[in-house]
Amino acid sequence: MQRALTGIKPTGDVHIGNYLGSIRPALGLQERHQAYYFIADYHALTSVFDAAKMRAHTRETAATWLAFGLDPEKTVLFKQSAIPEVCELAWILSCQISQGMLDRGHAVKAARDDDRDINAGTLFYPVLMAADILLYDSNVVPVGQDQKQHVEMTRDMALKMNHRFGEGTLVVPEVAIQKDVATVPGLDGRKMSKSYGNQIALWLPPKKLRKTVMRIVTDSRGIDEVKDPDSCNVFNLYKLFASDAQVASLRARYLAPGLGYGHAKQELFEAIDVVLAEPRERYNEWMAHPDRLDEVLDAGAARARVAAQEVLLRVRDRVGLI
Amino acid sequence: MQRALTGIKPTGDVHIGNYLGSIRPALGLQERHQAYYFIADYHALTSVFDAAKMRAHTRETAATWLAFGLDPEKTVLFKQSAIPEVCELAWILSCQISQGMLDRGHAVKAARDDDRDINAGTLFYPVLMAADILLYDSNVVPVGQDQKQHVEMTRDMALKMNHRFGEGTLVVPEVAIQKDVATVPGLDGRKMSKSYGNQIALWLPPKKLRKTVMRIVTDSRGIDEVKDPDSCNVFNLYKLFASDAQVASLRARYLAPGLGYGHAKQELFEAIDVVLAEPRERYNEWMAHPDRLDEVLDAGAARARVAAQEVLLRVRDRVGLI
Repeated sequence: MQRALTGIKPTGDVHIGNYLGSIRPALGLQERHQAYYFIADYHALTSVFDAAKMRAHTRETAATWLAFGLDPEKTVLFKQSAIPEVCELAWILSCQISQGMLDRGHAVKAARDDDRDINAGTLFYPVLMAADILLYDSNVVPVGQDQKQHVEMTRDMALKMNHRFGEGTLVVPEVAIQKDVATVPGLDGRKMSKSYGNQIALWLPPKKLRKTVMRIVTDSRGIDEVKDPDSCNVFNLYKLFASDAQVASLRARYLAPGLGYGHAKQELFEAIDVVLAEPRERYNEWMAHPDRLDEVLDAGAARARVAAQEVLLRVRDRVGLI
Repeated sequence: MQRALTGIKPTGDVHIGNYLGSIRPALGLQERHQAYYFIADYHALTSVFDAAKMRAHTRETAATWLAFGLDPEKTVLFKQSAIPEVCELAWILSCQISQGMLDRGHAVKAARDDDRDINAGTLFYPVLMAADILLYDSNVVPVGQDQKQHVEMTRDMALKMNHRFGEGTLVVPEVAIQKDVATVPGLDGRKMSKSYGNQIALWLPPKKLRKTVMRIVTDSRGIDEVKDPDSCNVFNLYKLFASDAQVASLRARYLAPGLGYGHAKQELFEAIDVVLAEPRERYNEWMAHPDRLDEVLDAGAARARVAAQEVLLRVRDRVGLI
């Protein structure tokens, strides 16, 4: 069975855009692959400088994925930092690529364009990402279009290692670009993003969730006016949660007089809440038992370690460290 | 007792310039400090892409230092890669410094000036060096003037960590610039360096050593002419090996007719050979018993690991990885 790897950055305040755009598609992996999911706490160190936040976000992230159905029996869920070998492989890989290649990385270019200084960790992020992938002999790396370049850099490093130190030193992974990933509008209609402050947080209690949904920006058409569903943020979000029949029904009511936006928002709230209610219960259950969460992560790490040590032993031998 | 740390790059073909300029002064450390000496095989990965060479150089380096009197009971001698935790600390440190700071590093600037592309490992070398130093709570880092900047970068990273994650997270080391380090002339009078091909290899058998010494470039004054000791490569090397009385005697003979350069070279050869004869025997003994070498390195690694794990546990806790 092919091994697929997904990294999850433990940022706080996960929102429904994250769920629809990345969590749900990534969870599809576990059906057809041996899936490895890791919580990328080393990567988070480039921006999180607070131990309490780092710990909290790590647990919240694990609980979120488990709540949505990540099956820790079938797949491997672990904290990146539980396998520090990844940093060693990152060092070894760094000796295989040119500084010029690093400089052409997306994050670095974006920072240069904005005249921002970045930390060396951010500059080095594609190397650690390559190590994440290569340490587990991953065959497939499903990523969004924006991460394609980094997986290609990973392939380059693996090919260089195999050229220098012998075929089979590392498995050269395939990129699998995730297409048709939902673009989720935020409260103001722009793409939902924490940086815009337009998000609907995932784990709000129902009352607060309803209150947030009620803040979605609409035009000012009254109850008696006909409305345009396709330009409406409420309707566009509704499509992502409701059944086809529900969507058709709401569309018909948009196109006739008699529907107020308050009513449409109430239906949206209910549609979201139906999807989130059970996961929310499971999430709260996991968060109430951090010891169980840690057990799951530890068990995942033990499995990941077996794969990692096999690869690293091979690499260390080939480069002459043992 | 203060802890002093020295890294030794396992390059092959060590020469008498290395001995006089770095090995001998560094061995002085073990008298007044708890000295840690590590063979920097991770660093060597930036330029050595051959496992057999890497292994050979590592053993040769260990044998060389032991031959010159490194006392493995008193000091800690180990392979850098035996403590892979150093790579993890390097990653954590990389998140504390700006890309701009890396770009101002000596090696990077030199490469840019020469329009050479360097690998990312070379760019990152000051971060791994910082990790080398900080992982062992080193108090003192004796370096040549050329490495001063890198130790200052190390101090910056340690201070930043302490600022972000609490005082005492890392020990901020002091630079100790090694002064009065002998400049050793090579066969052609330029500084002895493998890159000039003007070196006198350290572990030549006496016959070959003599042959190499005979190749030292001199002017063409004959036996009956008075000679200038201070501009003579033979004499300048002799000063580094012979006793004061011997030096005074040879100087007097340079300043009078009757001395041929061949004769001076013979005296130089003998002076070098007296110094190297016993270490050479010990070196050959160590090289004949790689298992014993490995034992020494393993025992050193075990001691280094204790120090490293204490520091890394503290760091991991402070940044929120545990």
